[in-house]
Amino acid sequence: MILEVAQIDIKAGSASAFETSMQQAVRLLRQVQGFRSYELLRSIEVPDRYRLLVRWDSVESHTSGFQKSALFQQWRGLLGGYFERTPSVEHMEFLATEETNLAGADRRSGKHGT
Amino acid sequence: MILEVAQIDIKAGSASAFETSMQQAVRLLRQVQGFRSYELLRSIEVPDRYRLLVRWDSVESHTSGFQKSALFQQWRGLLGGYFERTPSVEHMEFLATEETNLAGADRRSGKHGT
Repeated sequence: MILEVAQIDIKAGSASAFETSMQQAVRLLRQVQGFRSYELLRSIEVPDRYRLLVRWDSVESHTSGFQKSALFQQWRGLLGGYFERTPSVEHMEFLATEETNLAGADRRSGKHGT
Repeated sequence: MILEVAQIDIKAGSASAFETSMQQAVRLLRQVQGFRSYELLRSIEVPDRYRLLVRWDSVESHTSGFQKSALFQQWRGLLGGYFERTPSVEHMEFLATEETNLAGADRRSGKHGT
């Protein structure tokens, strides 16, 4: 499993519309073989900056399975108009992951596989 | 809950030593009130680049609870020598998170709280 880290900087004033379009766009991800899960985050320091973190089975699940598919054309159709610039995308491998101090936390899924 | 996203670029040739020191350093995080969990990742495209993703109760858990504590001096003592430049640190809020396509996945923790 790998993590795609996409930094998405959007045009000023388009946050609400972008977030609505993302709700539609992530449905496309679910149709891709090798997709595991995603998290969408918004920067606190730079409010027009988002990060999309996607867990894929492999880099190829993302680059071949998704980016070369017709689904990716739909993805860019939904989101491309909001981009201030082309998102930067990296792929990362998990070295370590752990959850502790769960007292008071809102989930208790325990240790993750790496 | 918020996510700290730290980009850590290390000096060429120091990856193995850095990763060993990180194993010690993350023990410090566990001592901080408001620490939830972390993930350490290494870039596939840029091998001297790491990201540390840390879930905290709040931005203040990180900036006041950790960065202003004596633990942070230990942290920098363990890791500072490996940095090619000062790590860039952002804080992000969770907008959406979901796990699907879990067939074949190595964990089944279901939907996360946001």
